[in-house]
Amino acid sequence: MEKIGFVGLGIMGKPMALNLLKAGFEVIAFNRTKEKVEEIIKAGGKAANTPKEVAESSDIIITMVSDSPDVKDVILGEDGIIFGIIEGSVVIDMSTISPSVTRNIAEKLKEKNVEMLDAPVSGGDVGAINATLSIMVGGNLSTLERCRKVLEAMGKTITHCGTNGMGQTTKLCNQILVSVTNMAVAEAVLFAQKSGLEAHTMVEATKGGAAGSWQLANLGPKMVNEDYAPGFMIDLQQKDLRLVIEAAEEMHLPLPALTYVHQLYKSNQANGEGREGTQALYKSVKRLA
Amino acid sequence: MEKIGFVGLGIMGKPMALNLLKAGFEVIAFNRTKEKVEEIIKAGGKAANTPKEVAESSDIIITMVSDSPDVKDVILGEDGIIFGIIEGSVVIDMSTISPSVTRNIAEKLKEKNVEMLDAPVSGGDVGAINATLSIMVGGNLSTLERCRKVLEAMGKTITHCGTNGMGQTTKLCNQILVSVTNMAVAEAVLFAQKSGLEAHTMVEATKGGAAGSWQLANLGPKMVNEDYAPGFMIDLQQKDLRLVIEAAEEMHLPLPALTYVHQLYKSNQANGEGREGTQALYKSVKRLA
Repeated sequence: MEKIGFVGLGIMGKPMALNLLKAGFEVIAFNRTKEKVEEIIKAGGKAANTPKEVAESSDIIITMVSDSPDVKDVILGEDGIIFGIIEGSVVIDMSTISPSVTRNIAEKLKEKNVEMLDAPVSGGDVGAINATLSIMVGGNLSTLERCRKVLEAMGKTITHCGTNGMGQTTKLCNQILVSVTNMAVAEAVLFAQKSGLEAHTMVEATKGGAAGSWQLANLGPKMVNEDYAPGFMIDLQQKDLRLVIEAAEEMHLPLPALTYVHQLYKSNQANGEGREGTQALYKSVKRLA
Repeated sequence: MEKIGFVGLGIMGKPMALNLLKAGFEVIAFNRTKEKVEEIIKAGGKAANTPKEVAESSDIIITMVSDSPDVKDVILGEDGIIFGIIEGSVVIDMSTISPSVTRNIAEKLKEKNVEMLDAPVSGGDVGAINATLSIMVGGNLSTLERCRKVLEAMGKTITHCGTNGMGQTTKLCNQILVSVTNMAVAEAVLFAQKSGLEAHTMVEATKGGAAGSWQLANLGPKMVNEDYAPGFMIDLQQKDLRLVIEAAEEMHLPLPALTYVHQLYKSNQANGEGREGTQALYKSVKRLA
């Protein structure tokens, strides 16, 4: 069995690392706050003091941290993975970060004869716990095949999306779809409510046809019930939408609808609703009325 | 069997009337241009010279015309249904029109002891031909029950949405969902294409999760293939979106995303693409880039 290094034991990373242990892999883990490593040790894993140390004793190193600068930091920064890595190993970044930063890091690793995969996920903490994540992979297909068993220990659907950065690009497309479709649901629910139409009936009547979406079926009823408990938190969605907008800027690409939803989520954040679920977009749409 | 009057034998109305004949109902039909009645006569139906004449020999009169003024005209105008109608009959308007106009007409018919249902449909000409339409019904539930067999001859899913106008309101919610979700797909496909990501792969990777929608699964691949043959035509979508915006105006309700999509479809119309399918929204999104 290959030895897996794991850097970043947050709400997503910890259950993913535990699933690797469950699947029989050796796991050596690093996390900035040390307490989170305890659970990995209890489950049979080992702890390292730096990302460099993780790399020194791993065949495949997974990073699962918050944002582009964090990935740069744990791979290229002081005591970073790149300073301990063994030629021929693979780095898999499963964070959601900038496609162009991803390509830069992949080039730096290439100089050390190390292949990188970008493999961001969707499916949330529930998917991380149940090992049912969707994993969108950028990088060499042969490298993906080498790592497939590892990815299969954490996810259900594994799609090869193209070269380095294309996993991240696919994830950002996913976030465009999720956000603007959510907007469709929010405006339809508001129109129904203001018209005196029972909005649950509207959702039931429309969700099976051309109007149907995951967002409508799952978030529509929550909007109607004013249930704003987070499935996916607005603050996290905003970080992903910032990545979309930055990538679009790099390409000089206007995305008016996505940008508008980003602004409405800012209204949520300004009103102290950043830790509510994305369905609270409905509150911002209502604030306009 | 009840006698059914049918006014409006367009691309939707004709197959619906034929399905009523197939189900064993007597049908007497009127259409402004006479040739279209021929097929109804061949199939065993009768022709009338005016909507009034249709009403004189029908228990239930269905109207399926283009827009609010047309429905007003065939029901309340010269030689209209209201001048021939028998007390106790029912008028079912299956056109997509204004909810408030619907309520006005229903009140006028009530004065004659005639109940009205608004019963707009979704599912397009294919649904009309195969009798698989979704029918969204506003009006008394008892009136709906009286007419259920008639509606079942034309559609598969029949939902009681509330009082008069609520069928129309549900249909307009459906069009908000369809249009803004379509926008989500157009921006995601464009982002993918500009990024050099194979957009079919993106659609496949995202459509099964929280990003998924009918629009993504069905129109996404058409955008990627630049296949703009109409499933549902932009010119028709625009008429429905005008109804949404008018109804929103009456309620002083801002719908920024829906209004923006309406503007982009105007760009399609301005560029001679009004008779293309709604997936040609992608062309307008591309024109911005």
